Order: sequence, then structure tokens, then C-alpha cells
Amino acid sequence: MPVSTFILSSSLALQLVSGAAPVATKSAPTKPAQTAKAFTPPLAVAEKLVGPALTEGHSYARLAELTDGIGPRLSGSEGAAAAVQWALRSFKADGVKAWTEPVKVPRWVRGEERGEVLASERTRGHPLFLLALGGSPPTAPEGLTAEVVEVTSLEALAALGDGVKGKIVFFNHTMSVAADYGRFAGLRGRGPALAAKAGAAGALVRSLATASLRTPHTGSTRFEDEGPRIPAASITTEDADLLHRQLEKGAVRVKLVLGCSELPDADSHNVVAEIRGREKPQEIVLISAHLDSWDVGTGAHDDGAGVVMVMEAARLIAKLPQAPRRTVRVVLYMNEENGLRGGRAYAEAHAAELSRHVAAMEMDAGGGRPVGVSLRAGAGGQELLKPWLSPLVALGAANFSAREAGGADISPLLPARVPFFGVEVDSSRYFDVHHTHADTLDKVDPQDLARSTAATAWVTYALAESPATLVRPEAPAAPPGSAPVAAPQKASAGH
Amino acid sequence: MPVSTFILSSSLALQLVSGAAPVATKSAPTKPAQTAKAFTPPLAVAEKLVGPALTEGHSYARLAELTDGIGPRLSGSEGAAAAVQWALRSFKADGVKAWTEPVKVPRWVRGEERGEVLASERTRGHPLFLLALGGSPPTAPEGLTAEVVEVTSLEALAALGDGVKGKIVFFNHTMSVAADYGRFAGLRGRGPALAAKAGAAGALVRSLATASLRTPHTGSTRFEDEGPRIPAASITTEDADLLHRQLEKGAVRVKLVLGCSELPDADSHNVVAEIRGREKPQEIVLISAHLDSWDVGTGAHDDGAGVVMVMEAARLIAKLPQAPRRTVRVVLYMNEENGLRGGRAYAEAHAAELSRHVAAMEMDAGGGRPVGVSLRAGAGGQELLKPWLSPLVALGAANFSAREAGGADISPLLPARVPFFGVEVDSSRYFDVHHTHADTLDKVDPQDLARSTAATAWVTYALAESPATLVRPEAPAAPPGSAPVAAPQKASAGH
Ligand SMILES: [Zn+2]
Ligand SMILES: [Zn+2]
Repeated sequence: MPVSTFILSSSLALQLVSGAAPVATKSAPTKPAQTAKAFTPPLAVAEKLVGPALTEGHSYARLAELTDGIGPRLSGSEGAAAAVQWALRSFKADGVKAWTEPVKVPRWVRGEERGEVLASERTRGHPLFLLALGGSPPTAPEGLTAEVVEVTSLEALAALGDGVKGKIVFFNHTMSVAADYGRFAGLRGRGPALAAKAGAAGALVRSLATASLRTPHTGSTRFEDEGPRIPAASITTEDADLLHRQLEKGAVRVKLVLGCSELPDADSHNVVAEIRGREKPQEIVLISAHLDSWDVGTGAHDDGAGVVMVMEAARLIAKLPQAPRRTVRVVLYMNEENGLRGGRAYAEAHAAELSRHVAAMEMDAGGGRPVGVSLRAGAGGQELLKPWLSPLVALGAANFSAREAGGADISPLLPARVPFFGVEVDSSRYFDVHHTHADTLDKVDPQDLARSTAATAWVTYALAESPATLVRPEAPAAPPGSAPVAAPQKASAGH
Repeated sequence: MPVSTFILSSSLALQLVSGAAPVATKSAPTKPAQTAKAFTPPLAVAEKLVGPALTEGHSYARLAELTDGIGPRLSGSEGAAAAVQWALRSFKADGVKAWTEPVKVPRWVRGEERGEVLASERTRGHPLFLLALGGSPPTAPEGLTAEVVEVTSLEALAALGDGVKGKIVFFNHTMSVAADYGRFAGLRGRGPALAAKAGAAGALVRSLATASLRTPHTGSTRFEDEGPRIPAASITTEDADLLHRQLEKGAVRVKLVLGCSELPDADSHNVVAEIRGREKPQEIVLISAHLDSWDVGTGAHDDGAGVVMVMEAARLIAKLPQAPRRTVRVVLYMNEENGLRGGRAYAEAHAAELSRHVAAMEMDAGGGRPVGVSLRAGAGGQELLKPWLSPLVALGAANFSAREAGGADISPLLPARVPFFGVEVDSSRYFDVHHTHADTLDKVDPQDLARSTAATAWVTYALAESPATLVRPEAPAAPPGSAPVAAPQKASAGH
């Protein structure tokens, strides 16, 4: 997931700051019908979803196919195209009707890349371990050599004014735990563009990492369409620490060679699949994940895990003796990582039916164990869903998360006031491997994946089967993307 | 430290296997003189050693000079030569007399290196993250492409016989904790040579790692002088897991390109320094570490930490109002990692005075906190040293380790029956970074380093000042190097 995922939680953050109760803890002004008569969820169905998810190992086997068999799948790449075909084949094998929908995607390609702290009187040279940021232009073939200036915030960059002209701006920060991601992601997402505007020659960003063995973390950086662009790369925490120490002693010069390039937009696809509802097929519960990944590692946690969770939820729901009341639609989005074109294309193509999207979710926080259920809906959401949660007790997920549900690819559904839900997973180690060469199958625990798959299947079924639907939330006050980027990843509400 | 360090503990391991009590727990047949009259160590001296070691931050500052200022220092490299000059300058600044002694070292140089699991019907291709093993020959410029055969022991390799002809042998294993190192290090050290003899075309060894973020661990591999040599590299645990999974499904072919080369032997140096004893200057307490490192990372734990510990011990002892009874000699060995030439050169050049070496130690297990004191001596060693340990209580090191003291560079002193001692450190996370790009300053905790430095200074002083000396141990039954490589890293004796 990119920074934009975290932007979504800003409305909750603002409520917390202003003292208002977060959405997820509001008490419902009305009592949904089914709670009145001591509702019991259909346990015979629950066992048909939770049982196979936990015992058959199907989601993990699928994850191995996607990561080992296909590997990285950045938008526009052969891997991404292969993943689309794999998803279609897999849905077909599962007996779930599936099709593709066109998405035009950016095609950014990594090239040769290296960096070096140049030798000085005080020190011999050091290699920099780095990854170009997605969207970065290349350096000249002979590379870029310039003095480095360190900042730790966008405000500090602004304060330097002309002081960065011709220099390489080094964005340093103090990320140490997963919850810090939102605080510092803006340095990567917006820092290089702002440095370019101020006349900088290049940008280096400390990796957004909670662990490092000289491990750079890539990610997108965004330049304005008509604004200046400069070569930008992430460096490892080790190299950031080294630069910081060297800068405390005097001037430091760095040489940077990036051979990345932006090719013409390419034709690609979202993969959409659905299980038609038995009573209200026109009402849609959308479950999703993103099929693309970064070009490093094999996207096992980001977002292979989400992909196989929602695919397996669909497979198991499709095998039920009786389809749920409403249609369950799976969307595997293309281009979450560096463009969000798939999310936007879906919202546009399906604009006419968004009012009939009664709930939507995106699984995109890794393959950790489930820790709760989240919502972003109007009044009474928890009361509606709570009676359905008992099958999740043994999975550790039968409670409501303080976090507001959301997801980058479903954010274009916000103006249509689609209620969001989610299964929250343990993401505490997610940023050890996020957007790195180390995001590989071995990092995903099969048991954790199975548990979150089970929870996903059950909550999806609950919302597709429940007699009542979630109340639609208010439209967001501002268009998505205009919220402050400093929103915390997970709000720590007091419950 | 290389595999040879662990070979040293084999004599203890053999004792444990045969049921004899380990050396370190034998009770002394005679009672040393000083315990009879309730000996109290000179606390005024202890505070002058432990106090500054813990408060002045000198060892960590030195480690920053060595790692940030100089960086990697593989034998024969410019970094190694710079480290020799740095050590001489530093001893001079500390008021400790120092000189160099010649060592002819191998000069192995890493080149371009890359690997790839080739695409098959079942899978797209995958990059292999690897590091050539020190001592490996290069591949042909166009690379080596061959089928992979997996083995998990040298016995399994032998059982395959001709089955490995023309193939790349993949040595896989199950290392998970630091104590596993000794069990599997032989796969790296001897596996490629044995595979070469069996006709293999190349070798890949799973990294000897306790953590990985796609992090290869290099190290030496040894070919016989007149035997066949094949390109050999370590791959990450992630890539080893991938290969294993692919091999379960069918044949796997790998392409390997290694551009490493062995240049002619180079002139280099051990750095030797000493503080002359006030009463018995001819008796020598030798404290040591190795100045060389691998060519990846900056050798912060391996063995920059050991280097600065013994240098700081010498600096603080040199500042005492009165020198200890015996001479304290510091040796910073060159070429521990890929040849042990420095250790052998010292033993040869000083053969005439080895009988006057009353104790020797090498710090080479990283910069962790101290956990105890170790010995390898004749009867009564613990009784001699125990009364001196009270200043180590607050450091957590006032106890005897079950491990026998040793060190690769001091192993050539074994035939001369030099007693060994050591400060054992917490090495539980050592193999997260050992021989990797991630062995950098940020991985060393300044407090842990300071504590182990303090313990090193004090134990060194104790042995240089104690009226009695350690009883010399028996000569080893077999020459060092002929012991089984499967000796455990740390013997877990029952006390
Ligand atoms: Zn993602
Ligand atoms: Zn070492």
C-alpha cells in the first residue's frame, strides 16, 4: 500500500484531534431490526467458510503461485500481464465468473542504479544502497554529483529556500514503528517535488522502514504534471545514518546514477469476478485487493496476501449450497502502487451502479493475523455487524477496530458514499519488508494468512447476507487526496 | 570470525561427547596461593579501567573512525592498508608504543556478480541475491548455466557420487539461531571443494544467517592447493527457500556470473603494541582482535568491535599510575577472514617467546554485552581468576562461561600451550549481520560495547597483575584444523 492508504484515515484523525468521538465508537441512534430478536448468525455457513480457510491451505498455495510462479508485477510489466491471466484462470478454476476491465497504466521502468558517498579528507568513499523511487526521472548517464543537504520535514525544506539550489536534498526522519509510516510518508511522496521546485538537483529519502539489513524501500514519489522533476531514490537506514554522521562533521558530496525511465502508458486490466446474489443481485458487496506490486521482491505481503484472501473468500462463498442474498464482487485492481489508475477506472466504469454498492473493502496491509473488524459507515454499523461476529472469536477478530476502514483503490468510491468495511490485520512487521526485495513468500505466515482469509470470508458473507445494509456515510468534506498527509496510520482511540 | 573459530571448541565438544567434564568446570587439584588470604582485587585500579570505559565513549568513537572513516578492509585492499595506518596513529595518540610486523596476504577481489533462476514452464525467472564466497574463482565471462541439485550435508553430497557432474550443487540447511553456526559452517567452508572434486560445475550455499531481508552472507571457502576449483556463492535464505520450493516441483536451472579474481599475494601487516610490565616485562599477556574485515559492510561487529575493545583496554591500562606486573601486548591481526596469515605470522615471528606468553585472548564475536569470562588453561584457572571478578558484577560478567576460550588468530599458539582467556559476549544477534553489507556501525550498541570493553580491560589487567599465572594447558591432541568442523559454537555444559 502507498501513502494514499493512510490519507484515508485523516478524517478519523481530525475527529480525534477535535475531540469528537471516532465513527467506529459512536452509538447508533437507531436499533437495527435483527438485534431485537436475539439474532444468531448461520453457523452452518460459518463453518463452511472458516473451516476450509483454516484447513485447506488454499490461500497460501495461491500466494506461492503468484509470488514464486509470477513474481514482481509492476504496472505495465510482463509480470503484471501474467498476473491478470493467472487471476482469470484461478477464478475459473474456482467456479467464479470473472472478466477483465481495461485500465491504462503508467509504465515506469527501473534501470541501472547506484550511489556513492564520495571520499573526502575525513573519510574513504562508501557505497549507497538505494532504490530509485517510482516516478523518478533518470540522472544524466554519467550521473549526478552534488553536495548533500539534510532536512527532516517539508517545513524545514521550505525554510531553506534557495539554500538547496543545485544540491541533493536528503530527507531524514525517525520512523521506528509501523504506526510512524503516515507521519513520514509525505517526505517520500511529496519531498522530491518540493525540492525540485526549490531548485534542488536530486533527492534521497531515508527508507520508510521498521527494520533494515541494508535494505532500501522503494515507493512512489509524485511530481506535478508541469513542474520540475529531479532524480529521487530511497536509501537504507544504515546509509541515512552514515550520511547524517558525515554531515555533522562537514560537507558531503554524493554521486548518484539512476537509469530509470517512464515509457508510454500501457494497456492493462482490473480483474473483476462475482457471485450473483440470490435475492438482491443488484446490491453489491465489493471486496478487493491490488494485483500489481512493486518491481522488487515478489509482493507477497503487498499485496499478494490481500489478493489471495479475497479470492479465497469468493471461492468459499461460491461453494456454499446457497448464494448470499446480495452479489459479492471481487475486484483485483491494477496500478495501486504508482498511479491508482485501476481504482479510478473502476469507479468511472461503474459510476451508474455505485449507489447499489452497499459495502466495499480492500485488503492491503499484509498477510498478518486478523485483529478486528473496521467500518466506515453511517450510524448503526457496529450494531448491524456485531451479532455476526461470534464465529470470529477464536480467530481473535470478533471486535471492532478503532481504525476507520478504507483503502487506496476504494477511495474513489468515497464521493458515492459507499460504506467501507475491513478486516484489520497485524501490520506491526509489515514495514520490515514493504516495497523491498525482501517482500517474499517466506515472510508470510501460513497460519496468519489462513486466519485473515477466514475472517475476510465471513465478514463478507455477513454483509452480503444480512437483512439490513449499512447506512451510507456522509460524503467526505474534501476530495480524497487533499487531506493532510501527516495523518497517523492507526489512530489510537481510547478503546 | 570464520568457521575456524568454532573448530577451536571441538576439544571441549569431544570431552562433552566422551563424558569427561569440560575444562572450565574442572575443580582445581591445588589451591592457588592468593585465595588463602582472602584476596581483594585493587579496586582503585578497577575504577580507573571500568569507569572511563563506561563513561568516555572512546571505544565507540574509535569504532566510528574505523567503520565510517575507513570502511571495509579485506586483506590486501586499500582499506586494510588504511586501517593499519589508523591503528598506528591511534596507539600513538594513546601513548601506547606500537609497530607493524609483515604479513604476506592473499588478495581476493570481488567483481561483477549476479545470478538468476531461469524461467521454466512452471515459473517466470527470479533474480538470485548472492555474494561470491572468498576464494571462489570466477565463472566464464558469459556465466555458468546449469541444473541445480540440492543437498543438506556433506554426507548427502558424497552419496550423490557422479550425480552432481556438471551441475550446480546447492547446499541448503536449517540454521536458525547463532548456536547453529558451527553445525553448518562446513557446508560453506568445505562444501564447494568437495563438490568440485565430484565434478560439479558450481556451488551455491544458503547464507549462514539468523535473519534476512534478502541479505547474502559471504565468507571463505577453501579449495585444496592442487584440487579443482568451481565458482561458489552464498545466496540469501529467501532465495534458498525459493530454490527448494522450485526443486520440489521439478528441474531448476540457474545462471551464475561471478567476476571475482585472486590477485598475487600482497604485503600487509599485523599491528602490535605493548605496555611494558613493571616487574616481569618478559612475561606477556596478549590481547587481540582482527583488523581485516570482509569487503561488504564495514566490519563493525566483525571485528571492529573487538579491535576497539582491545585498543581501549590498552589505552586505559597505559594511563594507570603504575603499569601491571607483566607486559600487556595488543595484536591487531591481518587476514583472519580469508587466510589466517596474520595469526600464523605472529606465531612464527615470536616463536622464541611463546613460552613467555602467559595468557592470550582474541575478541571476535561482535560488540555485544559481556556475559562471562572464559578460560582454556590447566588446572586451577578459575580459582586463580575468580577473586578478581567482583568488579564485573555490575557488568553482568562476573561468572565463568561454559565455553572454552579461543580465537582463530590465536589458534597457532595452541602447540606452544599458551593459556587462553576471553570475555564472552552476547552473540545471539551476531549472525544477523555477520559477513554482510549490514555489518555497520548502527548495529553496535554503544552501551554494550562499553561494557564489554570495560570487562576486557579489567580481565586483561587481572592476568597481567596477578601474582600467579595460569597453568599451561596440555598441547592439543591433534593439530588445529584437523578437528571435525561440526563442533558446536557454544557448548552447553551443565552449569
Ligand atoms: Zn499495497
Ligand atoms: Zn571475525
